[in-house]
Amino acid sequence: MTTLQASAQKQLRQMIESIERLEEEKKALADDIRDKYNEAKGLGFDVKTLRQIVRLRKKSQTERQEEESLLEVYMHALGMLDGPLSADAEAAVDHMIAAE
Amino acid sequence: MTTLQASAQKQLRQMIESIERLEEEKKALADDIRDKYNEAKGLGFDVKTLRQIVRLRKKSQTERQEEESLLEVYMHALGMLDGPLSADAEAAVDHMIAAE
Amino acid sequence: MTTLQASAQKQLRQMIESIERLEEEKKALADDIRDKYNEAKGLGFDVKTLRQIVRLRKKSQTERQEEESLLEVYMHALGMLDGPLSADAEAAVDHMIAAE
Amino acid sequence: MTTLQASAQKQLRQMIESIERLEEEKKALADDIRDKYNEAKGLGFDVKTLRQIVRLRKKSQTERQEEESLLEVYMHALGMLDGPLSADAEAAVDHMIAAE
Repeated sequence: MTTLQASAQKQLRQMIESIERLEEEKKALADDIRDKYNEAKGLGFDVKTLRQIVRLRKKSQTERQEEESLLEVYMHALGMLDGPLSADAEAAVDHMIAAE
Repeated sequence: MTTLQASAQKQLRQMIESIERLEEEKKALADDIRDKYNEAKGLGFDVKTLRQIVRLRKKSQTERQEEESLLEVYMHALGMLDGPLSADAEAAVDHMIAAE
Repeated sequence: MTTLQASAQKQLRQMIESIERLEEEKKALADDIRDKYNEAKGLGFDVKTLRQIVRLRKKSQTERQEEESLLEVYMHALGMLDGPLSADAEAAVDHMIAAE
Repeated sequence: MTTLQASAQKQLRQMIESIERLEEEKKALADDIRDKYNEAKGLGFDVKTLRQIVRLRKKSQTERQEEESLLEVYMHALGMLDGPLSADAEAAVDHMIAAE
């Protein structure tokens, strides 16, 4: 035997061609997404913030608030924030298991 | 004014929702591609090599051969290959502008 | 000529070996960074939040506050926040060039 | 309690500062690697092929040959190669568990 059998050759070609079609559709969607962000930019919106919004909307409000509170606690501890901690962040500290 | 105007709010929401729909479709396609590779794996094909094939088929045969020849020249110079250079690789050396 | 000249061969080998040494040192540092995060995790810190802190500290406080305010404006417009906008976010709205 | 204890604050600061130092060193090495590739380019070498060489040298010769043979078998089955399979690629076919 010096090459793949005809049936395996056919399977291989079908697999590759399916994948290529799917890759093309995926690329077209990636282009559409980029265009949509550009359209938003043209309307005066900030693209970086929009991307952040899209990421944040995948999380629940509770999840977002917990993350935000923990970030505030760390930032406060490092002197990156002016003023006192918010009530949410204070509650986060109370639940933390940090090193003593 | 303490918040975005109603029209801008509406635009923002439409933009974000469009992007989210496109992102979902893109994710579904990424899942389909992964499934297709898994199906190929189940048939006995090597996924890493299939991915390489998909990359290579985006290039012309000439482009592939030139890249392959150049790689062969470098590998030969570094002692990574047994035997002499192929005719294609020799031709590549003749065209190279390498430091003397 | 059937291969690279001796001088080019030598240069090629030196280049590749230099790059490999640098890549090794870079990989060792990546490992050190991962170890440091694991150590922090062992002390009770949240790794994801630590990574966010490292990113945020590369920015000035002004830059961080502007980004945070804009994010708050967009989140508020999308109904992702309870309560009114903060004073900073209101100021951000006043400076925005959003579509009408 | 309204904030992290002093000892945890100190640990947090030390962790973050260690990570930042390591990140800086890592970035400096990434810059050195980029400079080295640019230097190689200035000497007439092809950067893309050099990167491929660096990847390939992490593998054993046996591993490289097996991958190359399998790639050749698939490319041949897809009509991407002129001429017959090499002896190595024929041997690879004999060992393959491909779909019938």
